[in-house]
Amino acid sequence: MAPKRANAFSHDSVEFGRVVAFSDGLFAIAMTLLVVGITVPAIPDTGDVGELADALGELQSNVISFFISFAVIGRYWVAHHAFFSGLREIDRGLIGLNLVYLAFIAFLPFPTAVLGTYFENPLSVAIYACTVAVISGLELVLLRHAHRAGLLRRALPEEVYRWGAQLSLSPVVVFLLSVPLAFVSTTLAVCSWFLTIPYGMLANRRKPEGADELLSN
Amino acid sequence: MAPKRANAFSHDSVEFGRVVAFSDGLFAIAMTLLVVGITVPAIPDTGDVGELADALGELQSNVISFFISFAVIGRYWVAHHAFFSGLREIDRGLIGLNLVYLAFIAFLPFPTAVLGTYFENPLSVAIYACTVAVISGLELVLLRHAHRAGLLRRALPEEVYRWGAQLSLSPVVVFLLSVPLAFVSTTLAVCSWFLTIPYGMLANRRKPEGADELLSN
Amino acid sequence: MAPKRANAFSHDSVEFGRVVAFSDGLFAIAMTLLVVGITVPAIPDTGDVGELADALGELQSNVISFFISFAVIGRYWVAHHAFFSGLREIDRGLIGLNLVYLAFIAFLPFPTAVLGTYFENPLSVAIYACTVAVISGLELVLLRHAHRAGLLRRALPEEVYRWGAQLSLSPVVVFLLSVPLAFVSTTLAVCSWFLTIPYGMLANRRKPEGADELLSN
Amino acid sequence: MAPKRANAFSHDSVEFGRVVAFSDGLFAIAMTLLVVGITVPAIPDTGDVGELADALGELQSNVISFFISFAVIGRYWVAHHAFFSGLREIDRGLIGLNLVYLAFIAFLPFPTAVLGTYFENPLSVAIYACTVAVISGLELVLLRHAHRAGLLRRALPEEVYRWGAQLSLSPVVVFLLSVPLAFVSTTLAVCSWFLTIPYGMLANRRKPEGADELLSN
Repeated sequence: MAPKRANAFSHDSVEFGRVVAFSDGLFAIAMTLLVVGITVPAIPDTGDVGELADALGELQSNVISFFISFAVIGRYWVAHHAFFSGLREIDRGLIGLNLVYLAFIAFLPFPTAVLGTYFENPLSVAIYACTVAVISGLELVLLRHAHRAGLLRRALPEEVYRWGAQLSLSPVVVFLLSVPLAFVSTTLAVCSWFLTIPYGMLANRRKPEGADELLSN
Repeated sequence: MAPKRANAFSHDSVEFGRVVAFSDGLFAIAMTLLVVGITVPAIPDTGDVGELADALGELQSNVISFFISFAVIGRYWVAHHAFFSGLREIDRGLIGLNLVYLAFIAFLPFPTAVLGTYFENPLSVAIYACTVAVISGLELVLLRHAHRAGLLRRALPEEVYRWGAQLSLSPVVVFLLSVPLAFVSTTLAVCSWFLTIPYGMLANRRKPEGADELLSN
Repeated sequence: MAPKRANAFSHDSVEFGRVVAFSDGLFAIAMTLLVVGITVPAIPDTGDVGELADALGELQSNVISFFISFAVIGRYWVAHHAFFSGLREIDRGLIGLNLVYLAFIAFLPFPTAVLGTYFENPLSVAIYACTVAVISGLELVLLRHAHRAGLLRRALPEEVYRWGAQLSLSPVVVFLLSVPLAFVSTTLAVCSWFLTIPYGMLANRRKPEGADELLSN
Repeated sequence: MAPKRANAFSHDSVEFGRVVAFSDGLFAIAMTLLVVGITVPAIPDTGDVGELADALGELQSNVISFFISFAVIGRYWVAHHAFFSGLREIDRGLIGLNLVYLAFIAFLPFPTAVLGTYFENPLSVAIYACTVAVISGLELVLLRHAHRAGLLRRALPEEVYRWGAQLSLSPVVVFLLSVPLAFVSTTLAVCSWFLTIPYGMLANRRKPEGADELLSN
């Protein structure tokens, strides 16, 4: 484990708290802004149920995209939460990497809106999937930096680190593989994203000893 | 009461604080975003008061919807606040359920905008009412999970739990009953929502012993 | 001073902190959302400086409105900050009143956008001025509730309370008086709002003994 | 160092925490709102990849502007973070100046959207560059106020203060110099902004003794 360095902020410091609060704020805003992408249709206000139902029916994929993206960002927030609870301190490098990571979280409402509007278009699926793959990739970069710079509460046994890295890498693989699939069927590609859920549950069972302790302390 | 479990975060931990701060942030944003649904009318800027008054007059139902939704989300925030102040610790299950609950809070600005724009349409009322019913239902799911998993500060006497469950269920009933009413009169249906206020006050009087203590400690 | 009551949360409790954090979040979002009211003009992208300057020139009043509203909400945030730092505890009544107050803070981006778009129209000025008058009125209601319910750190001497009440009332007077003025000249009416600044400085000099202590402790 | 004054809030007070939390919230929202400036193109939903690619291709400069502004605001957030961690206490003057500074942070999404839409226009670049220059100038005003009012943890040696002032001033110079450059080539002007990065790294090496300690304690 690396020695205590200058410009490092411990878990209990005001500065650590600010990075966490700032990240939480950004996550919360990105998740709430997703709804702005669903535009109320402009039809004459005749009070006719059928007409409004038709107009709102076209927003179906926007609503689906909203909930998918809310779940995706929510999952990253939970992982971010677990990662930061395992940190002993943060350094300027991690603050910078965290900002790069958050930039893509903040960007996600745009691919979500594109996907919601052009659900049938393989390009929308590809842009969305690549953005998510980049976020998962950056999650791995954060873990790697914390591991190497000795910022974690306990030095990670190599097998636990590999398990964590694999957990971050799996969405990269699933989402990138969905890109060619989107050219066959966009619906199939979007459905394939849900494979990350059973995968995550499976990985949780194969969790090596020490991984659980590390996160909950 | 269940024993202390791994992956549970106590009331004073940084992790508990993050969940609370994240929820508060999301509530605050959802409430503030409601205003984005009120679009400034585009008329020629002649400085004529009558013309602008006419144009803004059409936004009347948007403004009403804004204040209704602000009150609705505000009420859920107060309940969320009271619920979390009664928790001894949170587990991963509760964090996940809380996210599902927050997804519908974050979604509410959309039904609000639809209701504001198509106030006369029974479908707008129905969509809004169903969203609120789902949120109240999820409130009950959160309470039930906390009760069963032993996350509450004090084990709830069965009658207090039932009283709390009934308090969460009552808006579900009121809002679902307003859906058929909307096909008679949308104004009447929206007015019926205010029945939850006297109901809540009535329920507060019938509060069983121990319920008050539980929330204020 | 009233005795400690059930359902009251002291200054150091997690619950007090949540109300403060939630309010701060809402203030911050309302202030930042003001910028959404300034729409980028849609002109052909020829790279011509004169054309873009003309198009952006029409947004002049939008930009002025942004900075006025930012200053207005910022001033309320500072007052909210000072008020809450003088509270010993909060009760459910104050939480509810605070939500009503925040509803109008959250609403302000709409009158701001109307004022920015129809700056020459007396109605825009009137709507904006009335909203601000309501907020200042609610500020007084909050102070009165805290005074009567004994929520303040120190019981306020009657003269200090009156001084504080007058400080909250003065914007109500200035903004309401600007409404008839707007029918003469909207620019003059908007300029009259700045009278609250020297008034506030004057009031600060006439501050009765004990007022300062009360806020800074 | 100035004596402890009335209306000053120490680093550990709830009030100091609120200013920090409010600032963090505003930064996070301003950064996330940048994405709202990227509008989803409206083309017929034929599922044709080429058409959507063309439509999205026109948003290229919007996406670039998003990431530039995210990096710009992120850099200011890191500096704000370091500045506040070096403060012993804050006074009303600093709270006011901080609000003026935050007003321009909150304004930045507008110049960003203008730049994204009219990337080829020297005026867009000029407006953006001037806004950033104002923010860096205000950063200097904040440092100067804290230095003169004795709000810093340790009285700054004159050379450390000058070094900090120079660090804040350098973006002012770079961004203002990019304005005339924009009339030659807007791309070149935008690229010149990146000169602040090697400049900052260079300045960090020439950091006088005591500067580092000051920030990390």
